[in-house]
Amino acid sequence: MKNNQFARLNVDLETAIDELQQIRFYDEPIAKATNGVFTYRLLLRKAFLSVKTGAGFDEKLANYLATPTLDLSNWLDQEKPVTATVFYRVALQLLGFSVDVDFDLTDPLTAMRTIQLPLHQSKQVTWTKADVLAAWYLLLTTHTKTGQTYLDHLATNGYFTNFYTLPTDQKPLFFNGKAQPVFDTATLIREVVYVESSVDSDHDGQLDLLKTEIIRPADTNTGLKIPVLYTASPYNQGTNDEAGESMTHNVNVALTAKTPDQTRYEDIAYQPDQADTLPQPRAVNTETTIAAETFGREASYTLNDYFLARGFAAVYAAGIGTLDSDGVQTCGSVEQTQATVAIIEWLNGSRKAFTNRTDQVAITAWWCNGSIAMTGRSYLGTLATAAATTGVDGLKTIISEAAISSWYDYYRENGLVVAPGGFPGEDADVLAVETFSRMLAPADYRRIKPIFDAELATLQAGMDRESGNYNRFWDERNYRKNLSQIKADIIMVHGLNDWNVKPHNVERLWAGLRGLPITKKIILHQGQHIYINAFRSLDYTDMMNLWLSHELYGLDNGATTVLPDVLIQDNLTPETWTSYQDWAEPSVSKQRYFFANDALVDAPATHSAQSFNDHLPEAVFNQYRDHNEQWQQDLLTDSKNNLADARLLMKTSQFAKDRTIDGNVAVHVSVAVNQPLGLLSFQLVDYGQSKRFNVSPTTLNAHGLDLGYRWREDALREFTLANHTTPFKMITKGHINLQNRQHPWQNDELKPNQFYDVDISLQPTFYHLPVGHQLGLVVYATDFGMTVRGNQDLRYSIVLDQSFVDIPFK
Amino acid sequence: MKNNQFARLNVDLETAIDELQQIRFYDEPIAKATNGVFTYRLLLRKAFLSVKTGAGFDEKLANYLATPTLDLSNWLDQEKPVTATVFYRVALQLLGFSVDVDFDLTDPLTAMRTIQLPLHQSKQVTWTKADVLAAWYLLLTTHTKTGQTYLDHLATNGYFTNFYTLPTDQKPLFFNGKAQPVFDTATLIREVVYVESSVDSDHDGQLDLLKTEIIRPADTNTGLKIPVLYTASPYNQGTNDEAGESMTHNVNVALTAKTPDQTRYEDIAYQPDQADTLPQPRAVNTETTIAAETFGREASYTLNDYFLARGFAAVYAAGIGTLDSDGVQTCGSVEQTQATVAIIEWLNGSRKAFTNRTDQVAITAWWCNGSIAMTGRSYLGTLATAAATTGVDGLKTIISEAAISSWYDYYRENGLVVAPGGFPGEDADVLAVETFSRMLAPADYRRIKPIFDAELATLQAGMDRESGNYNRFWDERNYRKNLSQIKADIIMVHGLNDWNVKPHNVERLWAGLRGLPITKKIILHQGQHIYINAFRSLDYTDMMNLWLSHELYGLDNGATTVLPDVLIQDNLTPETWTSYQDWAEPSVSKQRYFFANDALVDAPATHSAQSFNDHLPEAVFNQYRDHNEQWQQDLLTDSKNNLADARLLMKTSQFAKDRTIDGNVAVHVSVAVNQPLGLLSFQLVDYGQSKRFNVSPTTLNAHGLDLGYRWREDALREFTLANHTTPFKMITKGHINLQNRQHPWQNDELKPNQFYDVDISLQPTFYHLPVGHQLGLVVYATDFGMTVRGNQDLRYSIVLDQSFVDIPFK
Repeated sequence: MKNNQFARLNVDLETAIDELQQIRFYDEPIAKATNGVFTYRLLLRKAFLSVKTGAGFDEKLANYLATPTLDLSNWLDQEKPVTATVFYRVALQLLGFSVDVDFDLTDPLTAMRTIQLPLHQSKQVTWTKADVLAAWYLLLTTHTKTGQTYLDHLATNGYFTNFYTLPTDQKPLFFNGKAQPVFDTATLIREVVYVESSVDSDHDGQLDLLKTEIIRPADTNTGLKIPVLYTASPYNQGTNDEAGESMTHNVNVALTAKTPDQTRYEDIAYQPDQADTLPQPRAVNTETTIAAETFGREASYTLNDYFLARGFAAVYAAGIGTLDSDGVQTCGSVEQTQATVAIIEWLNGSRKAFTNRTDQVAITAWWCNGSIAMTGRSYLGTLATAAATTGVDGLKTIISEAAISSWYDYYRENGLVVAPGGFPGEDADVLAVETFSRMLAPADYRRIKPIFDAELATLQAGMDRESGNYNRFWDERNYRKNLSQIKADIIMVHGLNDWNVKPHNVERLWAGLRGLPITKKIILHQGQHIYINAFRSLDYTDMMNLWLSHELYGLDNGATTVLPDVLIQDNLTPETWTSYQDWAEPSVSKQRYFFANDALVDAPATHSAQSFNDHLPEAVFNQYRDHNEQWQQDLLTDSKNNLADARLLMKTSQFAKDRTIDGNVAVHVSVAVNQPLGLLSFQLVDYGQSKRFNVSPTTLNAHGLDLGYRWREDALREFTLANHTTPFKMITKGHINLQNRQHPWQNDELKPNQFYDVDISLQPTFYHLPVGHQLGLVVYATDFGMTVRGNQDLRYSIVLDQSFVDIPFK
Repeated sequence: MKNNQFARLNVDLETAIDELQQIRFYDEPIAKATNGVFTYRLLLRKAFLSVKTGAGFDEKLANYLATPTLDLSNWLDQEKPVTATVFYRVALQLLGFSVDVDFDLTDPLTAMRTIQLPLHQSKQVTWTKADVLAAWYLLLTTHTKTGQTYLDHLATNGYFTNFYTLPTDQKPLFFNGKAQPVFDTATLIREVVYVESSVDSDHDGQLDLLKTEIIRPADTNTGLKIPVLYTASPYNQGTNDEAGESMTHNVNVALTAKTPDQTRYEDIAYQPDQADTLPQPRAVNTETTIAAETFGREASYTLNDYFLARGFAAVYAAGIGTLDSDGVQTCGSVEQTQATVAIIEWLNGSRKAFTNRTDQVAITAWWCNGSIAMTGRSYLGTLATAAATTGVDGLKTIISEAAISSWYDYYRENGLVVAPGGFPGEDADVLAVETFSRMLAPADYRRIKPIFDAELATLQAGMDRESGNYNRFWDERNYRKNLSQIKADIIMVHGLNDWNVKPHNVERLWAGLRGLPITKKIILHQGQHIYINAFRSLDYTDMMNLWLSHELYGLDNGATTVLPDVLIQDNLTPETWTSYQDWAEPSVSKQRYFFANDALVDAPATHSAQSFNDHLPEAVFNQYRDHNEQWQQDLLTDSKNNLADARLLMKTSQFAKDRTIDGNVAVHVSVAVNQPLGLLSFQLVDYGQSKRFNVSPTTLNAHGLDLGYRWREDALREFTLANHTTPFKMITKGHINLQNRQHPWQNDELKPNQFYDVDISLQPTFYHLPVGHQLGLVVYATDFGMTVRGNQDLRYSIVLDQSFVDIPFK
């Protein structure tokens, strides 16, 4: 295995000793210790927390080998000098690595390097007391075999329980630039308030109240002011899965011709409505500091759980249109953004909240230091992105994971209805119904139903599933229009294989942020639509700790420079994370491959046109309709299968050396179709027999990651190689309506059998193509997993030498 | 969905009120309430725990519909009489069922019946106060949509937190015959002691010390004596996965001929060795009541976690040959059983333990009431079974899940090496190495390695992988020899699709217990090798609570008669559990089907012999060797595939009505083979296109089941139907060495090409075969998943009309 740590700070000895003193590893006896080995023994005694007796300590020491033949207890008794070899032989054992499996007893230093664990460099072979202290400091910051620092490992065994009672002026406690778990999670305070938002989305003449769940350490009751990790999740009060599913649109429908028009962006750009007169805020009857409602188990994000032990509050709100809140679901509207921001405004002191919905008893976030971060994945990260684009005060940073930056890029593409991967027929209305959790309260739903039904009808008209075009509805839901307002620093995390929230969402956001005076970082992993905070090979949680300690507590820990700007997981070798200067930078040089018969070639070859027809025999169509996986497999399989006449499949020759594709792959085709309508789809493919990553991470240990001491747990995970080889893997894909050749908002004329130039940028990628493999491009029409499936007699012809793909090679 | 509750007690009104008073639902205001609706409002107020204000309570009430048009708050204000329809309309909402999805608002009573939720029967339409109280009591004992009682649901929201400080003489607190979570899991005490066993398995001249982890409520420190759930798990101090894997035996080896002999059982029966002189027990220097070691996170069983909140201690011990204990791994030996029992002897006061391994400071289980149960699955349940057969005092009951009752039935079958499903090449030595966790302490391992290696060599000789025969080694590991010593009551749980620990293990145990004067119960589910305590459709946890409250606290709750003796999950309809009088009862009538050409028929048909050859082309063999799933699929597929000449496949005609197979399927064949060696395998198959259960349960909610209040959580699961139909499913299987026709310990002569009668009992089953399906029997030799795979030229001939299968139909 390989360890990758990016959040570890190198400090000088003085700082190390000072910090060791703060976490009570350096104390009076150690100060008085006269040499390295005495110091070492005293440090070890503090690390063996479970035993109360000297004999018990010796028994535990006797489990470890200090030399290949001498146990640690006996070795310490000999009072010989500590050496790097002894120290790291023991260190590997303390970190949970196994003899023979992970390292060779005779050569621990090589193992340290191979596993990528940091080594203390000493000028002398026999270590001084200073060496031992410096190495111990380093060890505490080093990851164990189960993906947490050794100090966190000690913490999960109770190391910091004696720190729970520290006075508030000594909290939080930072070590190596990161907040430590000195807060008792058994005494967390959980309370509910109702934040009065600035919107009246259900038009009942009252500003929408938003149920807000707060979890904060008890220390806040004795004066500690702390920052907040706020997660806005429309899902977290429950969902209407059956109702949502019943709304799913039929995708087995024909693509239809659109009337050509000259629509300009200005014609469809979103402008706020003439402001309706908003209701007056509620009057305040009295004020209190004590909440009147609590809750059981929130729908938590384990990253927030980790920080609850470290001096951060967690706040969850589901927003308008959810159980116990007012309003309706609008799926990405400006009103939803305003409601999302309302919670932050309450936390920063500029907005009111009440203890219940009736008594008008106001309550402030008196325990909050005014610094807020937003966290969460998918819709949660989306709302974090939306909130950031308002420039709201107090929002210092967002960590947006797998987030939508424009809803058009989620449900549409180039004038087509294109579903999130795995969810054919889903659309904005389906998601609105699914998350409208007021439905879970039957009496409340009965009251709100007529209003929601009307809103839903408006939403359905706005999303315009018929044309698939970009319009005012989608422009309202394009957060990238407002990037210039962003004041918060941003960390983006996205899966390079995320076909749910596709990579254009993060890439276009990243591109839009390039020139802005904020700190922005991006992490790209090999997952689909997942969280990565429990991965063994990456210190993601430590990175976020370094980041949030800096952003929310103002700690001067160098987080903005220590953390890489661009961090990308390799797709060939597990546990390999590399930092880069940039990603998908437009000026990356591109290599052009022209279409040819079954081949991608360096220069235009043949002027002939190749054709394929999208129509399939009914039995074949039905089979693919019901088994999208089989369709995808056949599509990329280079054989005379059911799809052989329904696609073009072209390959480069084998690559003579490794290459890395970085960014947007652009395709240009000269295409004609036999009807006045049509669509094209493209998949860029890595061809070559290889053991590739499994699609989903492997769970190494279902309860392997403690988030604190006797607190919540997460499943430790890692991407692993599949047991068997596969012949290909899709790298990226794209779709376009041939009537939207210029703009997604404008319908172009499409005359049957006339050739048109079409340009499309596929979803951006970062892909390491190994030597000997071939790049392939598959050109087809119906995408059984994402587009409508009309099974129409649409015959597409492509002029080969006028068509090409541009590959950005790093 | 369908609810199945077997642990609910029906009580009279007086008892109900008394119990409601104990859990503080019945109090002074309710005693004074003058009618049903006032009573109802007061009860609801206690159930809405999260809100502190009257207005907040009214807001929550306003979420529920009391009538199709009136919310519960308004309805209560009208002070109309409570009716069954109103009560159960609200009850369904309180239990988490969804309008339209789970029930129709206009007809809640039908939904209650359909979901199998209990209804209070009243003589009058308008309910009296007594009706409301009785119905409320019933509601508290009724399961929610997420598979726990409504009272447990309230508990997970904090209902019982005010009970934590109850004086010890009022604890534990029982309701409806089951212990309630009135113990604070945030203050659990965790301690380690070292129990001195009665064995010296590592021959170091000292009795083996066994590390024992104890978790007990803090109330024990103030005088409460409590029982123990003891889980003996050789895995729970860690495992040596890589070392174990490297030991895995090559199964691509030839079957060899065995020399005929006349071995009798008496020749190989296990008798204890002449007792070596055992070391003297350690002297006691001092005694203490305070442990000197604690621990972090134990490897827990979630059922134990649930009971930790309810007044039961949990004790985990890994036994001899594990990290921090003495001894060596022996895989099922008598010494291992004695070591397992040593923990119980300490708990019952008849054995010593020490605070560490050195100081000889003795500590008793002074907090224990002397009543112990054992829990756990697989090896854990196996050791529980082993312990029960010693008749040790204090062991009141075991809940043995998926347990081995004879190790021969785990690693061998009828003179053959037969692997646990999914683990070809595993054997007793592999498991011994895998669980020898002293290897995880490198210095300790260095000291013990020579002794363990010698023990391992002895173990390998004893298990005799060459012959596959039953011998002294296996006889020592046959716990069923000692059933008559059992004093503990037993609950057995086993999966009817468990091909790891195969069903003969539980069936032969069940059969052996029939005549014994203990209470025994059996639960058979449709899973493989799994736990079932987090299934939504069955109140398994409640059943165990009723059981253990009775067995360990002596509560007179009728558990022995209330709980069904035999409870079996249906394989056709999800969420269907039925109680029976018995299972696999030998006198069940049998239907005989004779072999015919491709058919199973009612009367002998043709005297001809059919043949098949076990030898496969090398490419086919290699394919099946690497892809056992493909082999299994082809084996049962009735087509001219690669295995068509390597098996007989016979089917009955379609069944005209549903039938249920109950117990042991017996096959008799007249067989000849062309060499002096051979084996036969059989699979009984259900043929017919159907949507069958998914192989593994579906996770409904990853954190859906709270085990207490802010305590650990489990994933809520249920068996669901697959999305697609399949043409067949294996019901059961069996294997036999043709040289072990009479006994697994005796080698019979096998002359080439001579016909012999062979009888075999397949693994027992309980299988509901639907109308229109066919029963199939596949006769073959090499089982790629379980037997050796010699790919030998072995031609088997079977005389059809002298061969038959007897099916026990219920």
